[in-house]
Amino acid sequence: MNVLVLGAGQLARMMALAGAPLNLTISAYDVRSGNVVHPVTLEVLGRGLEHGIANADVITAEFEHIAPDVLRLCQDSGKFYPGEEAILTGGDRRKEKALLDKAGVNNARYQVIENRADFDNAIARIGLPMILKSALDGYDGKGQWRLKSADQADDVWQDIEAFLTASHQADRQCVIAEEFVRFDREVSLIGARGQDGNLAIYPLTENIHTDGILSVSVSANENAALQAQAESMFDAVASALDYIGVLAIEFFDVNGTLMVNEIAPRVHNSGHWTQQGADVCQFENHLRAVCGLPLGSAKRVRPTAMVNIIGEVTVPTSIMPLAHVHWYDKAPRPGRKIGHINVCASSQSELGEHLKALSTHLSVDEFPALLEAAEKLNQEA
Amino acid sequence: MNVLVLGAGQLARMMALAGAPLNLTISAYDVRSGNVVHPVTLEVLGRGLEHGIANADVITAEFEHIAPDVLRLCQDSGKFYPGEEAILTGGDRRKEKALLDKAGVNNARYQVIENRADFDNAIARIGLPMILKSALDGYDGKGQWRLKSADQADDVWQDIEAFLTASHQADRQCVIAEEFVRFDREVSLIGARGQDGNLAIYPLTENIHTDGILSVSVSANENAALQAQAESMFDAVASALDYIGVLAIEFFDVNGTLMVNEIAPRVHNSGHWTQQGADVCQFENHLRAVCGLPLGSAKRVRPTAMVNIIGEVTVPTSIMPLAHVHWYDKAPRPGRKIGHINVCASSQSELGEHLKALSTHLSVDEFPALLEAAEKLNQEA
Repeated sequence: MNVLVLGAGQLARMMALAGAPLNLTISAYDVRSGNVVHPVTLEVLGRGLEHGIANADVITAEFEHIAPDVLRLCQDSGKFYPGEEAILTGGDRRKEKALLDKAGVNNARYQVIENRADFDNAIARIGLPMILKSALDGYDGKGQWRLKSADQADDVWQDIEAFLTASHQADRQCVIAEEFVRFDREVSLIGARGQDGNLAIYPLTENIHTDGILSVSVSANENAALQAQAESMFDAVASALDYIGVLAIEFFDVNGTLMVNEIAPRVHNSGHWTQQGADVCQFENHLRAVCGLPLGSAKRVRPTAMVNIIGEVTVPTSIMPLAHVHWYDKAPRPGRKIGHINVCASSQSELGEHLKALSTHLSVDEFPALLEAAEKLNQEA
Repeated sequence: MNVLVLGAGQLARMMALAGAPLNLTISAYDVRSGNVVHPVTLEVLGRGLEHGIANADVITAEFEHIAPDVLRLCQDSGKFYPGEEAILTGGDRRKEKALLDKAGVNNARYQVIENRADFDNAIARIGLPMILKSALDGYDGKGQWRLKSADQADDVWQDIEAFLTASHQADRQCVIAEEFVRFDREVSLIGARGQDGNLAIYPLTENIHTDGILSVSVSANENAALQAQAESMFDAVASALDYIGVLAIEFFDVNGTLMVNEIAPRVHNSGHWTQQGADVCQFENHLRAVCGLPLGSAKRVRPTAMVNIIGEVTVPTSIMPLAHVHWYDKAPRPGRKIGHINVCASSQSELGEHLKALSTHLSVDEFPALLEAAEKLNQEA
């Protein structure tokens, strides 16, 4: 079976590696070059989206910021999972918030802002501090503002107005004002929904971000109540979208109550630990879902943490006795995710020790959340 | 780092999949076509062994029946692991038996047979029944004879003589007569030896063959005494060869005493379970070893069995909730290994149940050892 992935980055690459054993042949449509490539070898297999669609049995996506005309072509082919609406929703904060309301899942109060009057209304209604996020193209902390006090309102509005004016998709672009949520931690839930409606949901993952970019994810200690909350919201969101494939939901954990922050209609960075830590990893389960195959088990088989490798960092081979390293074959560039490290253990406390041992080989500036994650695991144990 | 594999079959393919996350680029020299190809996509990357060698940082092999001139070229490059002598030994029963004696490991009594006089001497010295194996090109039960009683001697000798005459490598070919070992079961040990001399050895695997071809491998229940015996022989053989890479040793288990049957200087079919069942799989540890990287842990993380998919068989997708399927992208042909299925569980007895459940989806004629393996696991539990 031939699967075309929209996007030729590391997620398509890891899908290709997970798909090969299933005899699934993955090609990737590189939206920048317009080429259809093999996502591991980067061999050019053809040119143009139409070519890619014609040769595919199934189409999926590795990111959500995709031009609407591309999504339309894919949707019209009848081969596209999770489909146009899910990708559009994941890539548009306005649609995303509307979906969360429709699905009836707990999420931060918000208001759509298209002009200064909306902005002033939001300040009055939501209160300060307030977070503002661009509806489109928000990614890794980009297109975000924080309004702490009323005297910053003019400055922040000036920034937002300039952003809206400069936006490529001015007709669909806007800003979403949201209440500032004082959360204890961020967790995410990754799960697959098959064409038969079956679900395979992984245990919750705890995430540590640095400067808006994910640094470390740890498959969380079992917490049946929290897991049940998350799964029920997953089910509601996935059903509302009639979703097929892997879906990621990021939550704020506010004293044991989960609030959906955002969704990603794709395999997700916070699910990379499943490659070593779960029975069947997120990449394989995504492919199983979109190809109409029965899902595999999402059971955690051992405590596992994922550490992102970001930018121009030094990763000595001395970590390798401890580490499962996953490089993306990407040139290092500041802020760019170029690989990740999965670390496994037989208990949460041993996992903490392993992360601490790992940190002795790595620079604390380059891997800022490693010790924090180790510390948290030790406290839990 | 670029790794050239001699042979472009499923073992090279699985090395490529395991190597990609380490940023190891694997190419494969197809000895039949003379092309250098990508072992997953089969894209032709170049032509001729010299081309392949020039572009490689490291050379290794996926099989041992390789022409001596090919091995010599690789050896002369200074990049070849485990190297010419190890591959020649694995591909030549005469050299292999001499190695086992040199390493001082327990193995069946034998005699080299080049003519009728040798044959008659062997009958007298070793006794009947006797197994006869061609020194070269023996594989999956081919090039083997069994002499049960003296009255068959003339017929068997006629066969052997014809075989020797027809052999392509008449100067190196001969037949090895071996005592018939009444073993309880066949087990194998897979391990890696790094360039630093460190070892990473997997737990013993129990193997069930059907018509001389491996059907099912089960990572064996822990047995410290047996494991220690096997590891000590592994160490002796690997040291005698100054071996680097993954080495497989097949043993007869005779009432708790192990006797080496044969070695394979490569990743091995009976180690495929490590893809799902061990911390770091045999393919990755082989690459780590030959590339001079630190080895990863060979610890078993869960009970796992491997079931070969051989020939023109039917494998319904209904097995997939239970199964990790690994297809080799090969056209089915009688007797040809075209894939394997890994099955995992949280205990040996659950593994038995899973194999039994798997067998309800598969034909007993096509997967003859499945129920036997399930039965054995249930008896052990």
